[in-house]
Amino acid sequence: MDDKLSAALKYHKRCPGKLSVIPCSSLETNQDLLLAYTPGVAEACLEIAKSSDLAFDYTLKSRVVAIVSDGSAVLGLGNIGPYAAIPVMEGKAALLYKFSGIEAFPITLDTKDEEEIIATVKRIAPVFAAIMLEDIAAPKCVRIERALQAELPIPVFHDDQHGTAIVVGAAVINASRYLKKDLASLKVVISGTGAAGNSVMRLLKLLGVGSIVAYNKDGVVKLSKYDDYDFVIKELLDEKIIDNPNREIASLKDLVIERDLFIGVSAPRLLTKEMVLSMNPDPVIFALANPVPEIDPKEALAAKAAIVGTGRSDYPNQINNVLVFPGLMKGLLESRAKTVTNSMKLAACKALAYLIKDEDLRSDYILPGIFEDGIVEAVKTAVMAEVK
Amino acid sequence: MDDKLSAALKYHKRCPGKLSVIPCSSLETNQDLLLAYTPGVAEACLEIAKSSDLAFDYTLKSRVVAIVSDGSAVLGLGNIGPYAAIPVMEGKAALLYKFSGIEAFPITLDTKDEEEIIATVKRIAPVFAAIMLEDIAAPKCVRIERALQAELPIPVFHDDQHGTAIVVGAAVINASRYLKKDLASLKVVISGTGAAGNSVMRLLKLLGVGSIVAYNKDGVVKLSKYDDYDFVIKELLDEKIIDNPNREIASLKDLVIERDLFIGVSAPRLLTKEMVLSMNPDPVIFALANPVPEIDPKEALAAKAAIVGTGRSDYPNQINNVLVFPGLMKGLLESRAKTVTNSMKLAACKALAYLIKDEDLRSDYILPGIFEDGIVEAVKTAVMAEVK
Repeated sequence: MDDKLSAALKYHKRCPGKLSVIPCSSLETNQDLLLAYTPGVAEACLEIAKSSDLAFDYTLKSRVVAIVSDGSAVLGLGNIGPYAAIPVMEGKAALLYKFSGIEAFPITLDTKDEEEIIATVKRIAPVFAAIMLEDIAAPKCVRIERALQAELPIPVFHDDQHGTAIVVGAAVINASRYLKKDLASLKVVISGTGAAGNSVMRLLKLLGVGSIVAYNKDGVVKLSKYDDYDFVIKELLDEKIIDNPNREIASLKDLVIERDLFIGVSAPRLLTKEMVLSMNPDPVIFALANPVPEIDPKEALAAKAAIVGTGRSDYPNQINNVLVFPGLMKGLLESRAKTVTNSMKLAACKALAYLIKDEDLRSDYILPGIFEDGIVEAVKTAVMAEVK
Repeated sequence: MDDKLSAALKYHKRCPGKLSVIPCSSLETNQDLLLAYTPGVAEACLEIAKSSDLAFDYTLKSRVVAIVSDGSAVLGLGNIGPYAAIPVMEGKAALLYKFSGIEAFPITLDTKDEEEIIATVKRIAPVFAAIMLEDIAAPKCVRIERALQAELPIPVFHDDQHGTAIVVGAAVINASRYLKKDLASLKVVISGTGAAGNSVMRLLKLLGVGSIVAYNKDGVVKLSKYDDYDFVIKELLDEKIIDNPNREIASLKDLVIERDLFIGVSAPRLLTKEMVLSMNPDPVIFALANPVPEIDPKEALAAKAAIVGTGRSDYPNQINNVLVFPGLMKGLLESRAKTVTNSMKLAACKALAYLIKDEDLRSDYILPGIFEDGIVEAVKTAVMAEVK
């Protein structure tokens, strides 16, 4: 029967799953047991009882990140719940280990309630070095991350927000370097105002991007619809991170006209060849919806896009969080940082971008490939330099 | 500076801690990544979305137990909290793996509230095969275990209660076999009515032990003080598991007179040589307070105890939960049992006892040593036979 399974299902049936929790120290002799368990273990307990920080010296707390999800927004699959989400969280943990040597354990929560998620993560935090939130629906993911980071003494990082923002930021920096366009005069249009969109816009503003207009499933984001929006979009309008379109623009088609850069973190096939043709000369298209992008890269190139990036590994310019989170987590853990700051995100973003020298940038090479050397080290070093 | 650390602290500093979470399947090639993460992982997600039971087929859920504590009653160290408790939970996980190959991850909770503990464990349960509760203070540990087992579709097992009860039960069976005393006529006195004491008494009654009287830090347990007791002791009196002493007995000294068996799950040095001398002929003494037992084994033997057992590895007849929980957990996981039943506990208890043949029983060999072969297999098989 297993013969009929796909390669992916066979891969998942092997262990089964993808992670093992195994002893890292010798347990061969009775003497080992006396050190690892009673009576020896009591010495480690008593040290930590004096100062909880010593848990970093004597336990796995120094090494293991929790990858936490409620399964409410898993990949492109949506609200599939805490059981079906496990393979993704295990996979993320496996990737993190593969690229950085940082360990992680998946925790999928049998609740979708914002307050319950916050309370639960706070209560299980003592054993973890950091919290990575994953695949939690917007807008609650934003409030959950803020509340946890405000109350926990360890870093809390929602990769769908900031991992995406950092890698997109690096791609934007390099696109502007390659095209010799000034970030301050760059006109951006973004499709998607959820977890990723929100953080992308905030980071682009911190990078000095000139103008951002936004579109989501309810249409063009504008002040006249302010009361209909969730708090995430309201904040972006309040802080003038999203510009209010100054004409009566009602469609994405109208919104992209004379823009320099399209960023899609939304849904398949929203952008047409004609729309790309209506953008400013040498338009840049980052169509990150997965697995089907907002526009087929071939169509975008046919419409004279100067640079096209997607989330996929089978096209050039893959814009993937895996360029960010391994180095960032490694930097956070090695420095025992207590929070993730904007200055760390900016530093990670710039470090990733400037891994490629001016002369090596090409229209189909604006980010390093995920298997290139030095990425984790560069991001880690940049993050650690920002730890106060 | 590390040179000055004890062997136990050095052992804990090595990794640091005692457990690693690492990938169990190959992640060497890009093809591996495409199977372990997007797009391949979505196939496993979609299968589990059809039936959450399939999480056992495609994720670590089939293999990993949560070891959960609030740090409120850790070893003999007391209420040392969720950070200082981590080494014990890691150690327990390491022991479980060493003896049974079953993996476990420690979760120490930053709350002591009964309802919050229950709610939190319920919410994090999806990723785990079973819940092992550990070092949670009585009486709340009893209510927590009952509530979780009633509401979760996976086994919930509080080792301090039932692991202890099962191994003590096996020791009682074998003491009575060796001394040719009938369980039904056996008169037991127990010191300690907390997590361990409660479950020991219940299991001894299921085994058919004749009479149990009890003592705790408030004195002799008796009906006349009923209103002062917590619900655990009230239940034991209600169900006539604890006998009401039928004279005006006020001290442990008076309570042990003409008893056959003393079980201490309480505090150091409560039992004297004189008290042992006042017991019935061939008294059996199980003094399990750790690291200092209720009576020094040498004193008990000097007072003509027929059999003496302790929790320590440096005396004969070590009565240690590690004889039980590895095989029990393995049986639960391999059979995908949903609960832990009394029939499983009885079966485990008898299987452990009858590992020793009649002719091999000796006064200093009433239980197998923890490194003997066949223990895990025997307990596992017995448990699996009771799964409906």
